[in-house]
Amino acid sequence: MITDHMVKSFDTELRRLNATIARMGGLAEAQLDAAIRSVAERDSAAAVAVIAGDANVDACQFDVEDLAVKIMALRHPVAVDLRSVLSAMRIASDLERVGDYGASIAKRALVLNQAAPLRETEAISAMGRVAGEMVRDVIAAYVAGDAAKALAVWKRDEELDEMYSSLFRVLLTHMMEDPRHITPATHLLFVAKTIERVGDRSTNIAEMVSFLVTGATPAEMRPKRDVSSFENA
Amino acid sequence: MITDHMVKSFDTELRRLNATIARMGGLAEAQLDAAIRSVAERDSAAAVAVIAGDANVDACQFDVEDLAVKIMALRHPVAVDLRSVLSAMRIASDLERVGDYGASIAKRALVLNQAAPLRETEAISAMGRVAGEMVRDVIAAYVAGDAAKALAVWKRDEELDEMYSSLFRVLLTHMMEDPRHITPATHLLFVAKTIERVGDRSTNIAEMVSFLVTGATPAEMRPKRDVSSFENA
Repeated sequence: MITDHMVKSFDTELRRLNATIARMGGLAEAQLDAAIRSVAERDSAAAVAVIAGDANVDACQFDVEDLAVKIMALRHPVAVDLRSVLSAMRIASDLERVGDYGASIAKRALVLNQAAPLRETEAISAMGRVAGEMVRDVIAAYVAGDAAKALAVWKRDEELDEMYSSLFRVLLTHMMEDPRHITPATHLLFVAKTIERVGDRSTNIAEMVSFLVTGATPAEMRPKRDVSSFENA
Repeated sequence: MITDHMVKSFDTELRRLNATIARMGGLAEAQLDAAIRSVAERDSAAAVAVIAGDANVDACQFDVEDLAVKIMALRHPVAVDLRSVLSAMRIASDLERVGDYGASIAKRALVLNQAAPLRETEAISAMGRVAGEMVRDVIAAYVAGDAAKALAVWKRDEELDEMYSSLFRVLLTHMMEDPRHITPATHLLFVAKTIERVGDRSTNIAEMVSFLVTGATPAEMRPKRDVSSFENA
């Protein structure tokens, strides 16, 4: 038997779940942004703060899971309601990874800051901006139930992939020019790859939002690259 | 009202869920193994098969999620039963990533096979063996509800991390010795990092198994490395 009161409580709980995800998205985006700046501005203190701050993102995931499990135990949601709760858990899991990526970039910053600066950090900042906007936009799309916005994020991942492929080639050339650049350039390569992964997580979330709102993942298939486009392996 | 019949059905469904995870673990392990061999034996045909085979691992995840959602909708599990179903979904998500890692390694193999062989592929095979065993053992621990076995996997991740750190240094030295090795060595570095991530996923699963069986994650904390141990960022 479902009473109005029960339905209203469920809505309230879902809203709380969404608010926690919105907050988690904001934290993950801020961590990523601070991590990129710790590379660009060679700021090791900022990097240490990012590494410590990852626990806050993890705590948000715990809150989302806790709330989701309570909702499932108390309300027994079915069909679309159950999908909503499960999607919230999956989105929290993706955001937790974005937080990990931020911490991972910050750890590389600590090493990079001990070597001579590389000119490619500007391209890293540009990639970081795109990835940060993707995280922000996809969480906004989730909260608003906006499939068009989610699709825009999904499409934008190609832009980030291209930035990564281009930077990959530039960094390899740089390494070949001067072996002294090999170690820092390798770390910067891992930073770039990590930012590219933030795009993948955002794309994942965009697909979930699209599915929640329209019942289908983005219909138009992204042009698949040739398998030899190894940089994105 | 819970009848014996309902309880029995729930057990049957959980067993089916576990069997699907066991099968998924086997597939993911096989994909990883074939991917490593496609690098070690420079076998591009095998690499192409691994890339195509990732869809089978993805299909298993779909099966697990579908079954889990059905169980939750029909049985409304609470407490430990709900945790079991949610853990199954999380383990499937980790195994899906292991499958992705296999495909990612296979894509790198296609590129590596076009360059001159590198002597470090032997170390890659050794890392692959450890990672494959971790996947196999942690899924066996899950199916058997064996916390001691899960703990052993969890501890073994340090071995894999050390192999990775060592190979990282060797590859960088190799790149410095001869700039012609930079491109293939970079790809091999990403392969090594990907194998190291398989260890992280296995560790994740080990923690879930430990929690499911004992109610606590592995108590003894792994010695945390100095933050300057950047190779594992």
